Amino acid sequence: MTAGRHFLQIPGPSNVPDRILRAMDYPTMDHRGPAFADVGRKALEGMKAVFKTESRVVIYPSSGTGAWEAALVNTLSPGDSVLMFETGHFATLWKGLAEKLGLNPVFIEGDWRSGADADAIEARLREDAGHEIKAVCVVHNETSTGAVSPIHDVRRAMDAAKHPALLMVDTISSLASVDFRHDEWGVDVTVSGSQKGLMLPPGLSFNAISEKAIKASEAAGLKRSYWSWDEMEGPNKTGYFPYTPATNLLYGLNEALDMLLHEEGLENVFARHKRHGEAARAAVEAWGLDVLCKVPEHRSPVLTAVMMPEGHSADNFRAVTLRHYDMSLGNGLSKVADRVFRIGHLGDFNDLMLCGTLSGVEMGLRDAGVPHKAGGVQAAMEVLGRKFDGARAAA
Amino acid sequence: MTAGRHFLQIPGPSNVPDRILRAMDYPTMDHRGPAFADVGRKALEGMKAVFKTESRVVIYPSSGTGAWEAALVNTLSPGDSVLMFETGHFATLWKGLAEKLGLNPVFIEGDWRSGADADAIEARLREDAGHEIKAVCVVHNETSTGAVSPIHDVRRAMDAAKHPALLMVDTISSLASVDFRHDEWGVDVTVSGSQKGLMLPPGLSFNAISEKAIKASEAAGLKRSYWSWDEMEGPNKTGYFPYTPATNLLYGLNEALDMLLHEEGLENVFARHKRHGEAARAAVEAWGLDVLCKVPEHRSPVLTAVMMPEGHSADNFRAVTLRHYDMSLGNGLSKVADRVFRIGHLGDFNDLMLCGTLSGVEMGLRDAGVPHKAGGVQAAMEVLGRKFDGARAAA
Amino acid sequence: MTAGRHFLQIPGPSNVPDRILRAMDYPTMDHRGPAFADVGRKALEGMKAVFKTESRVVIYPSSGTGAWEAALVNTLSPGDSVLMFETGHFATLWKGLAEKLGLNPVFIEGDWRSGADADAIEARLREDAGHEIKAVCVVHNETSTGAVSPIHDVRRAMDAAKHPALLMVDTISSLASVDFRHDEWGVDVTVSGSQKGLMLPPGLSFNAISEKAIKASEAAGLKRSYWSWDEMEGPNKTGYFPYTPATNLLYGLNEALDMLLHEEGLENVFARHKRHGEAARAAVEAWGLDVLCKVPEHRSPVLTAVMMPEGHSADNFRAVTLRHYDMSLGNGLSKVADRVFRIGHLGDFNDLMLCGTLSGVEMGLRDAGVPHKAGGVQAAMEVLGRKFDGARAAA
Amino acid sequence: MTAGRHFLQIPGPSNVPDRILRAMDYPTMDHRGPAFADVGRKALEGMKAVFKTESRVVIYPSSGTGAWEAALVNTLSPGDSVLMFETGHFATLWKGLAEKLGLNPVFIEGDWRSGADADAIEARLREDAGHEIKAVCVVHNETSTGAVSPIHDVRRAMDAAKHPALLMVDTISSLASVDFRHDEWGVDVTVSGSQKGLMLPPGLSFNAISEKAIKASEAAGLKRSYWSWDEMEGPNKTGYFPYTPATNLLYGLNEALDMLLHEEGLENVFARHKRHGEAARAAVEAWGLDVLCKVPEHRSPVLTAVMMPEGHSADNFRAVTLRHYDMSLGNGLSKVADRVFRIGHLGDFNDLMLCGTLSGVEMGLRDAGVPHKAGGVQAAMEVLGRKFDGARAAA
Repeated sequence: MTAGRHFLQIPGPSNVPDRILRAMDYPTMDHRGPAFADVGRKALEGMKAVFKTESRVVIYPSSGTGAWEAALVNTLSPGDSVLMFETGHFATLWKGLAEKLGLNPVFIEGDWRSGADADAIEARLREDAGHEIKAVCVVHNETSTGAVSPIHDVRRAMDAAKHPALLMVDTISSLASVDFRHDEWGVDVTVSGSQKGLMLPPGLSFNAISEKAIKASEAAGLKRSYWSWDEMEGPNKTGYFPYTPATNLLYGLNEALDMLLHEEGLENVFARHKRHGEAARAAVEAWGLDVLCKVPEHRSPVLTAVMMPEGHSADNFRAVTLRHYDMSLGNGLSKVADRVFRIGHLGDFNDLMLCGTLSGVEMGLRDAGVPHKAGGVQAAMEVLGRKFDGARAAA
Repeated sequence: MTAGRHFLQIPGPSNVPDRILRAMDYPTMDHRGPAFADVGRKALEGMKAVFKTESRVVIYPSSGTGAWEAALVNTLSPGDSVLMFETGHFATLWKGLAEKLGLNPVFIEGDWRSGADADAIEARLREDAGHEIKAVCVVHNETSTGAVSPIHDVRRAMDAAKHPALLMVDTISSLASVDFRHDEWGVDVTVSGSQKGLMLPPGLSFNAISEKAIKASEAAGLKRSYWSWDEMEGPNKTGYFPYTPATNLLYGLNEALDMLLHEEGLENVFARHKRHGEAARAAVEAWGLDVLCKVPEHRSPVLTAVMMPEGHSADNFRAVTLRHYDMSLGNGLSKVADRVFRIGHLGDFNDLMLCGTLSGVEMGLRDAGVPHKAGGVQAAMEVLGRKFDGARAAA
Repeated sequence: MTAGRHFLQIPGPSNVPDRILRAMDYPTMDHRGPAFADVGRKALEGMKAVFKTESRVVIYPSSGTGAWEAALVNTLSPGDSVLMFETGHFATLWKGLAEKLGLNPVFIEGDWRSGADADAIEARLREDAGHEIKAVCVVHNETSTGAVSPIHDVRRAMDAAKHPALLMVDTISSLASVDFRHDEWGVDVTVSGSQKGLMLPPGLSFNAISEKAIKASEAAGLKRSYWSWDEMEGPNKTGYFPYTPATNLLYGLNEALDMLLHEEGLENVFARHKRHGEAARAAVEAWGLDVLCKVPEHRSPVLTAVMMPEGHSADNFRAVTLRHYDMSLGNGLSKVADRVFRIGHLGDFNDLMLCGTLSGVEMGLRDAGVPHKAGGVQAAMEVLGRKFDGARAAA
Repeated sequence: MTAGRHFLQIPGPSNVPDRILRAMDYPTMDHRGPAFADVGRKALEGMKAVFKTESRVVIYPSSGTGAWEAALVNTLSPGDSVLMFETGHFATLWKGLAEKLGLNPVFIEGDWRSGADADAIEARLREDAGHEIKAVCVVHNETSTGAVSPIHDVRRAMDAAKHPALLMVDTISSLASVDFRHDEWGVDVTVSGSQKGLMLPPGLSFNAISEKAIKASEAAGLKRSYWSWDEMEGPNKTGYFPYTPATNLLYGLNEALDMLLHEEGLENVFARHKRHGEAARAAVEAWGLDVLCKVPEHRSPVLTAVMMPEGHSADNFRAVTLRHYDMSLGNGLSKVADRVFRIGHLGDFNDLMLCGTLSGVEMGLRDAGVPHKAGGVQAAMEVLGRKFDGARAAA
């Protein structure tokens, strides 16, 4: 028995606002009846605004992994080469998925401490004179490391290399938290999921697809049915789906779209995440610990992965923090297992929730006997206060 | 604006009980944290009881269509022949899905007015001396027609033909409403979904898989990742899933399992549906209309498809009924479009809801000018009352 | 364990719409903070529209009984005479309450089979040349009998008698179901509650008060604090309450006001209840049973009290109906205990819910061995269908 | 538009747990039907355990103010003297209420900076040789000042004075947060409400009543009906109430009772509040500000009232904090208006919520230009960590 609210500070699923949970808590409706069209259309139109695209969006009843698969099976043929960049655990999982589907991933190794390197991608593409590489796949916000890849730079690199590959971007943990522009940045397939910046429970995933991607899908040889875009043009026009949609999650999605697009506004949402990322990193610095991502401009507004001092177990620290303070933190995955912990600061989140979160980390470090300096919360409060400096000066 | 509750009498999604909606209306939890194991295990163990299997269950974040695909891609190789029986629209869709995946469906034609014919299946299998057919796929309850296929007979037919094909059964609209026995009937892959007898919103799907099916999966050549059973043995032991599960739907599933297994009891649930099917058909007979399914023992406890008198539009009748009485009925699909309507009487349902439903049909027939005799509700009430004859006699 | 929805067909608490329950399912807010003013003002302004008054409304955190007490203690002095009319059980309870408060009720006896008799009231007032009687108290819709009193006639009777008494009306079970006009009918204090036509759970009660009543309150000698109107002028201006309001019920009230005033519209709500009352009585007539209220124009749109055939127990019938069909019906109270049962058809209710309800009554009568003719539901469906006769003729 | 959860840190209404809101989000039931008895009995029995009494509990559909009135009108007669102690605003309001009811309060003045003074009460009672004083009324936790009165000492003082007056205690903001013992401490009427330690929305209030109080009620001359205990013996036996109860709040109450009595356990709840009070006061001290309550052993585990430095407006500070950090704090009432602010740390609350709260205060002080030292949150974290010192030492 624990009192008060659990602090769910993993980097997704994020905290779901009451309004969204309550919106899902309504009777399922007839997904073929006249009233459904508005539900479906609102969801699809809203998601186009979130992806910043005028093209087409597909919504799947699946988790984000399904949208990874959908991006590949709709556009590629058996044996196709795909250039992928090892930003961390999730980039590696996507590569594994490509292999299982019979593709040939070309994997640019990374050190898990930065986003994708556009120059390395450009160099590799320039080598590919025969255009064997059919797609470049990059994770926008690598959830395992807290590093953001510069997608706009990757696009420019592809253009510089005059390479015709499709650009596919995983925004599962960045969409609606970090600025992303499907059309402007020339992305062909954007992959996303519901349980992070969209503030929903898991169970919905998305593809935003360019005209070039649609054209590619007509010639693509991989077999597909559930993920097929073929029957997905309809929904964008009619609001109806080819098979039973996850109706109650769509109720929640429409509530999220109201909040993100029409109430707080996407740019304010991005600014909020950015400020919270800065405050979290100020706390880490005050504790005398290192942020895993070593490229300052790649550091994520969504999560902060923190390196443990040598000889100390991140998982023990997380267990202590959960037991003492009822807070879930993200674990280190595969290559950094037990060596980092991750603080999620995304979704439906605010200054005092962040202060509570950082207090929990600071007390957990102490309770677990991890060497650190006190003062992290204090440092974060100073960063948070800067927003109001003007108001104070004026007062 | 309509007052009172909408009558959602399509044959699924069915009415979701308040308890299940409320169970889903809780904060999403850390699906990698220690508390999740109980949630995952309870769901998987409970579903084994619902499928009546001791083997393995896989839960997908997807709609039922995904579980159709999962059954095929895990067990078969490109070009494999699968014997499928045309019970109606959904059997036809499954066949289309098999084709898209590169399989070779052998389709036994049906007239959409009965369940699968075990003798015809046996005959076809006897012809297949070379065992080209790798799987027999049958829809247990054909949602488009209201006909139940005799799965036990199909198993006996396969055994009689001494054919080694896998038996795959779609129970999307029958599971937890009509008796089904995965192990006893020798089914290899059972496919199901959340939004019918399980009384949940759409968004979860299931495979129950025999040891024989697992063995087949090891040699199966179709490419797969999201649907792959490979990583799904873990969950059955640990309660954790290989990728983010649809956590809040799992909360709802566990509530449904309590209701079905531990409160009402599966056999009582089956008896309830059977009795409601009988009452609904008594109403149809009193109206002087025909039930689409012409084999009495195949008539479904889950839904009743009713044939319209010649020259009358089922869709017009349904539109009138929705407008006047705020009730959604199922439409006729493809071959029987506009010629039948379907009354769902499944899931979280009781006698007075059925009487309200049949009243709506009877008033809708009248309002839409469809020739019929009054007295359907009266006839249904007589059937419903039989259950209490003993109590009256004793009183 | 029962499947499907319980039929709550007592004459209140009525069925609470999902929207209202969900509106209440939000965190309690600071009732002194700036955001609360809108909540409070919306509730008070909306209730003025429901009462059809331009004067003042008071909202209490209490059940309806509290609003009865409030009406009396704010306007009267110890020993004051109040003329009350015995329409049934609730009128009798109100009289008992007046006695406990030290008032002197003059009770005009009634036979519980009609509303108040305006002529009898006029005659009694004419006898009161010394104006000892300070208030006339009438129950608008007597919930124990299903009889509506003609309030407008009572007002005219008081005017004809040139009597200065205050007119107090209990609309606990009529407000927002049966037309009521506080200002136009010259009512001084209207008493109401949340759990009937307002479609809320119990816990809020109301006084609508005329200027004359406010003036009377200044001289009234009964002691009061919780119920005192003195501090209740504030809320009508500011939206804040003198003590902690039942915040979450106010959330629900505001949702109800949207539905009643801005979506369905009060006049449509009244018409809906009237039509359902007619259909219910057609069923009773078809069963060959008697409606308790014998004055046709007094019969209630909110509930129908039905007399049992001699020698049959209403309570046994209700118990059988609850056990067999999971429907709650109202019991006979005091003078008519076990001799009548009451069917509620109010609040968030529609045609198919009524048909389900009447089916449950008809089957319950049969199961309990109560002599009756079949065909009640059929008769009700004919009444319900009349609304659409024009549409059919036009088609 | 604000992101994340509002911090409702007024000293009640407190944060309502999701489980309680969800428990209230169910259809209202028939409060006269057989299933209700369990609901009513569970609530009444559970509340006896919370009050620590074997005697009788009464539950009202009203806010706490109603329970104040009920305590007086059931036991006293017009003109009776009652000894009341001015602990702060709420004690003063209770005195005003007594005056409105025609009682004669004898008010021992206080300075609003401590709980009641048992010695002063004893002295005053000794003067009352004629036993004109019929009741002693004390507020256990004065919500306006954050001072806890020593009820056990008051009882001893009354015994020492050999005075037969009834002892009445307001526990509206202490019950289920601070240890309270109705029977052991010889309290005759305990008054309480739902929206503080019981973690419910406002709308329920309580009286716990001794045999002596019941005896007094038989002779009490004040008029009463809604508040009358006469008909309230029934509910304690049958679970049914004399008039319509606030059913959905009772659903919530039963959930709260499960959490308090059977899950966390009352003694753990008390310890949690005590520890949070200590941590909050450590923060205030670190800021260099003063706690309003100057008697250390009277300082409240439920709330901390903080004095503003001379010349600074508490209301301006609160407005800034609400605007910048979406947190509601309690205001200073009447005598201390604008001079104190109150931090609520009660109900469904935990360490990280407290740290978030104190961070909000510290940042609000800074933003509002209130002179203070930084480090309050840090100081609180140190106090919170003491609980785990043993674990660290052992590790």
